[in-house]
Amino acid sequence: MTITTTTPLQPTDRTTLRRSKERAATDREVLYDVLRAGMFCHLGVILNGDPVVLPTAYGLDLDQGPDGVIYLHGSVAARSVVAAPEQTICVTVTHTDGLVLARSAFHHSVNYRSAVIFGVPRLVADPDEKLHGLNRIVDHLVPGRSTATRPPSRKELAKTSVLALPLTEASVKTRDGAANDEEQDLGLPYWAGVIPLRVVAGEPVTNPDSDLLVPAHVRTRANLLGAPS
Amino acid sequence: MTITTTTPLQPTDRTTLRRSKERAATDREVLYDVLRAGMFCHLGVILNGDPVVLPTAYGLDLDQGPDGVIYLHGSVAARSVVAAPEQTICVTVTHTDGLVLARSAFHHSVNYRSAVIFGVPRLVADPDEKLHGLNRIVDHLVPGRSTATRPPSRKELAKTSVLALPLTEASVKTRDGAANDEEQDLGLPYWAGVIPLRVVAGEPVTNPDSDLLVPAHVRTRANLLGAPS
Repeated sequence: MTITTTTPLQPTDRTTLRRSKERAATDREVLYDVLRAGMFCHLGVILNGDPVVLPTAYGLDLDQGPDGVIYLHGSVAARSVVAAPEQTICVTVTHTDGLVLARSAFHHSVNYRSAVIFGVPRLVADPDEKLHGLNRIVDHLVPGRSTATRPPSRKELAKTSVLALPLTEASVKTRDGAANDEEQDLGLPYWAGVIPLRVVAGEPVTNPDSDLLVPAHVRTRANLLGAPS
Repeated sequence: MTITTTTPLQPTDRTTLRRSKERAATDREVLYDVLRAGMFCHLGVILNGDPVVLPTAYGLDLDQGPDGVIYLHGSVAARSVVAAPEQTICVTVTHTDGLVLARSAFHHSVNYRSAVIFGVPRLVADPDEKLHGLNRIVDHLVPGRSTATRPPSRKELAKTSVLALPLTEASVKTRDGAANDEEQDLGLPYWAGVIPLRVVAGEPVTNPDSDLLVPAHVRTRANLLGAPS
C-alpha cells in the first residue's frame, strides 16, 4: 500500500485504536482513498437511548474546510439530529477485500479497509448547499450523473434531508496480505490463503419505460467497477 | 421476490419503519435470507455516550431459541458490553444490489436488502458455546472451514470474545426493480435504469508458505461467489 502523507488525522481517545495498532494508518490520504473508493456508509446515531445503524449513500467535498466534508443523505439521520442537535454521530465506510483463511481457526481474518468518522453533523438548511451536497452524493455514485438528470425542484429539495460532517476526527484501519499462522502450525495439513472479494457492476439495465441508449457516464461507471463488457 | 411466511417478526416502535412502509418486509424468512447471504455486519454500540459503528464477521444458529441467534466476533463489542451489560446493540447487514438512476435527481435510489437487529447481547462465557459460536462464524464465511483448521486452544479461546444476540427484534427493508420517475418526467432526454452490483470472489490465492492445493471447500465458496473458473 502506497501512503502519501499530508495533514495527519486528529487521533482522540475514541480513534486511538486499542487493538492491532500496527493496522492503524493515521494518514489522511488513506482515509480519503477509502472514502473515494466506497459507495455507501453505515451511519450510527442514538435514537431513544439506543444505537441505530443504517446504510446510506454519501458524497465528498474534500476542498471544504480544513479537513473536507462528507455529505449524507437520509431522513432517519436527520430525524435523530433534529431530536438531538449536538449529538455525535459515527459514519463507517468498509471495504471487505478478502477472506483470510489460516491453518488455525484463531488466525482466520479478513482483508479490509475501514474508515470511521466521528463528529457533530450539521443539518444542511441552505438550498444552494443542499443542492451541492446532493450533487456530490449522486456524482459519488456515478461521476457525471448530476448534470444528466433533472435537478430537484424547490419542493423536492425541501423534502430531502442532507447532513454535512467534517472529516476531522477519523481513523482508518486496513489489513491486507496473506494469512499469518503460528510457526508451529505451518506444517499442519490445512490450506492457508486468501479468497479475494470485490464489488463489481453488471451490464446496465435500461428502464422498461426508456428507449435511450446507455450513456457514456453510466457505461464508464459500470466499466470502472469491472462490468463484463 | 418469493416470500415464505413463518413466524412474523416482532415489530416495535424502533423497527416500525416510518419511511417507505411498502419496503418493510416483516417476514422472518426474508430476514434469514438476508443474513444467510451476507458475510459481514456493521455493529452499533454506545461507548462513552457516543455511537460507534464497526464492521465485524458473524455466524448464525437459526435453530437456537425461538427466533435463532446471531454470533458476533469482536473485542470492541465485548468491551462495550462489559462496560454496559444491559446495553442494547444494533446489528445491520446490508446488501447493495444496484444503483438506481432515474430521470430526476430526486428519484435516484439504491436497490438493496438490509436487516437491522436490536437486542441486549450475551457475552458468551461457556467455552463449548464459544467454540460453537466461532465455528458458526468461520463456517458462515466459508462453509466447511471449521473442520479444515486447527481448532482454537484453550488459551486462544480465552483471548477471543463472542457475543450472542437473539434474532427477536428485527426489521428488513428491500428495494428492487427499475427506477420510478414522475409521469411528467418520462419524456425527459435522460437515461433511466439500474447498474447492478454484486460481491464476487476472485481466484483463491495460496499462502506463500503453503504448497497445498486449493481444497474443495475453498473452491466451492469462491465459485458460489462467482469466481472466474
